[in-house]
Amino acid sequence: MAEVAAAPPVIKVVGLCGSLRKGSSNRGLLRAAAEIVRSIEGLEMEYVEISALPFVNEDLEVNGNYPPAVEAFRLKILAADALLFASPEYNYSVTGPLKNAIDWGSRPPNVWAEKSAAVVSASGGSRGQRSQYHLRQIGVYLDLHFINKPEFFLNVHLRPPKFDANGNLIDDSTVQQLKDVVTALYEFTLQGKMMMMNIVELDKENE
Amino acid sequence: MAEVAAAPPVIKVVGLCGSLRKGSSNRGLLRAAAEIVRSIEGLEMEYVEISALPFVNEDLEVNGNYPPAVEAFRLKILAADALLFASPEYNYSVTGPLKNAIDWGSRPPNVWAEKSAAVVSASGGSRGQRSQYHLRQIGVYLDLHFINKPEFFLNVHLRPPKFDANGNLIDDSTVQQLKDVVTALYEFTLQGKMMMMNIVELDKENE
Amino acid sequence: MAEVAAAPPVIKVVGLCGSLRKGSSNRGLLRAAAEIVRSIEGLEMEYVEISALPFVNEDLEVNGNYPPAVEAFRLKILAADALLFASPEYNYSVTGPLKNAIDWGSRPPNVWAEKSAAVVSASGGSRGQRSQYHLRQIGVYLDLHFINKPEFFLNVHLRPPKFDANGNLIDDSTVQQLKDVVTALYEFTLQGKMMMMNIVELDKENE
Amino acid sequence: MAEVAAAPPVIKVVGLCGSLRKGSSNRGLLRAAAEIVRSIEGLEMEYVEISALPFVNEDLEVNGNYPPAVEAFRLKILAADALLFASPEYNYSVTGPLKNAIDWGSRPPNVWAEKSAAVVSASGGSRGQRSQYHLRQIGVYLDLHFINKPEFFLNVHLRPPKFDANGNLIDDSTVQQLKDVVTALYEFTLQGKMMMMNIVELDKENE
Repeated sequence: MAEVAAAPPVIKVVGLCGSLRKGSSNRGLLRAAAEIVRSIEGLEMEYVEISALPFVNEDLEVNGNYPPAVEAFRLKILAADALLFASPEYNYSVTGPLKNAIDWGSRPPNVWAEKSAAVVSASGGSRGQRSQYHLRQIGVYLDLHFINKPEFFLNVHLRPPKFDANGNLIDDSTVQQLKDVVTALYEFTLQGKMMMMNIVELDKENE
Repeated sequence: MAEVAAAPPVIKVVGLCGSLRKGSSNRGLLRAAAEIVRSIEGLEMEYVEISALPFVNEDLEVNGNYPPAVEAFRLKILAADALLFASPEYNYSVTGPLKNAIDWGSRPPNVWAEKSAAVVSASGGSRGQRSQYHLRQIGVYLDLHFINKPEFFLNVHLRPPKFDANGNLIDDSTVQQLKDVVTALYEFTLQGKMMMMNIVELDKENE
Repeated sequence: MAEVAAAPPVIKVVGLCGSLRKGSSNRGLLRAAAEIVRSIEGLEMEYVEISALPFVNEDLEVNGNYPPAVEAFRLKILAADALLFASPEYNYSVTGPLKNAIDWGSRPPNVWAEKSAAVVSASGGSRGQRSQYHLRQIGVYLDLHFINKPEFFLNVHLRPPKFDANGNLIDDSTVQQLKDVVTALYEFTLQGKMMMMNIVELDKENE
Repeated sequence: MAEVAAAPPVIKVVGLCGSLRKGSSNRGLLRAAAEIVRSIEGLEMEYVEISALPFVNEDLEVNGNYPPAVEAFRLKILAADALLFASPEYNYSVTGPLKNAIDWGSRPPNVWAEKSAAVVSASGGSRGQRSQYHLRQIGVYLDLHFINKPEFFLNVHLRPPKFDANGNLIDDSTVQQLKDVVTALYEFTLQGKMMMMNIVELDKENE
């Protein structure tokens, strides 16, 4: 088996927000996560918007092509190693717009397959718990590998406020919790990616 | 307590389809249900389209008003006594467009509250089971009262075909199963409505 | 239609505790509920123990008979109009002993069928939410009709303590929340029972 | 980085059956899995019985010790690299006895943590689907890593029979599906274990 390269591979995370509201706290979580990512060498993060997607509808698929906004979205997901979902809970489940984006991505070929994932929620009293387990069940079909721990649930109504007037996360303890999630996602993804590279390397040597 | 009127109240069902595809089998189930409804005196059904709704987004709520398409949708739901959901399963859960419509209806005041509901699915191998239990959990928050039985799951891939080339349900046994669902929903809704009327009547007498 | 009798029928609730621990807070919730029940005319409650049941196992069913402890348990459930489940959450779901009792009750004929139900939880940080939605899904097969609202989740770790050293509920606000659940369960069950009686009455008149 | 040893580490799987019935089809699935395991070098499997466990109850924990049957069970799980759950679905969820065993294993220290897992079901019409997603949610807390695919659901009522009179799996196509699950579980577990060994090796070199 060959030496593992001194520099581990770069891990690319895509951040997706389940709320379309400009001032969304979950968007704030993703901005804070992007800040955290900048402090971790070998980790990159891109925010991908889901609001421009049409509703999922097979009638829009013509000659095997998806609408341009869908194709663009799917390419972004395909290029990622890992997903970071930040979403409120709507009616005890995943939000409509986020589910719609997920559904487009699962159209063949499923662009979510074999990626790792984590989910964080800023929401009301339930702190998004119910929606996260729905998302994890959805992930079984998508073939996403979610980290188990740490889980991240944030009650946006608790005092003192966790976000400023611009929706930026300002609570140190919450930032640390978010950092723990990002770090766990990074390590989980890196391990999977290095193992895949070793397997490829081994296969080459065995030729 | 006053006599219950000889004619029971008319029950209004709204049918909602989770797939936007024109040839959707679930749309076919709703057409078949509408046919069944015509044979039940005292029961009316209206199909309500969800494809014209924007994505749920609080930024679109201005001065307490929802966008016109949303207002129209909400009024339709508000006028119903019962809901009949017909939906495929996407990625082990409710479809994005259906969840989006549900989310708009739950904005204050929640227009789903205290209505009765049933769900039927024409889908692939899982026959939509996983999505139906997600919908039922969503219904707890919406305060929908789902009938427990009969449950209706249809595998659209099984031979002989259950639908013709136009997506119309042509299988007698499936029509009967669907009739059992519609009848159970009707009776369940009627009982609830008559009980509410009796309570109102009693309250009047007690004045 | 005949006059509804001046005195409404007596509603019998059975209380079931998901924890076998003597000092269980959930047992405390059931004692507090029993106290509340005593203040509501026409409502009775019995606590039914589940710890003496064997593990569910068809090999223990001989000539269509269940083991004596199971038969006794099933008769208690059969005689009830409504169930009040009080249970902690174990590993994001229903506890093993409670699930075992539920499984025995569902053996044919299913003794849970068409009863109404409510669930309350005293548990850790999640306050039992995840387990309650599992129980509600289980209830679809059992044909239990759960009240939707109010939901009751109690974090036993929050200060000030809600229970005294003997596991008795001592927090007035929590008692009131519990009273709201018991009252909602009572009214929901009563409506169903009166409607059934009216239907029977109507059928007699129509003979 | 040191060479990875020529022989990969041995992977130990523990098989757990959710039904206590002697003739259980799920027990038959585990026997068939054990046969498959014998054909895979580097993989071992042990069947662990759960019927002798008492009901989970903290009152049985004395001075930090669990009852002997519980201690023995916990040691078996602790020694495993992976779990293979074979269980019917009872009332749309996990069986009581299996949940009870899971609950004992999660008492501190949680013996399930960081192991990999797969689940197979022989059940009625739903083929155990609903129970498997409950088990996967439970696994989030347990910190089990379930393989996503292939999923295995078997309808025991379909003709021709899949099991003989002794409950042994006799259907070649089902054996192949089961083999795909066992192989996926093996590879998933092996990758995780080798990665952990490499990390330990790297840490030693860096000292």
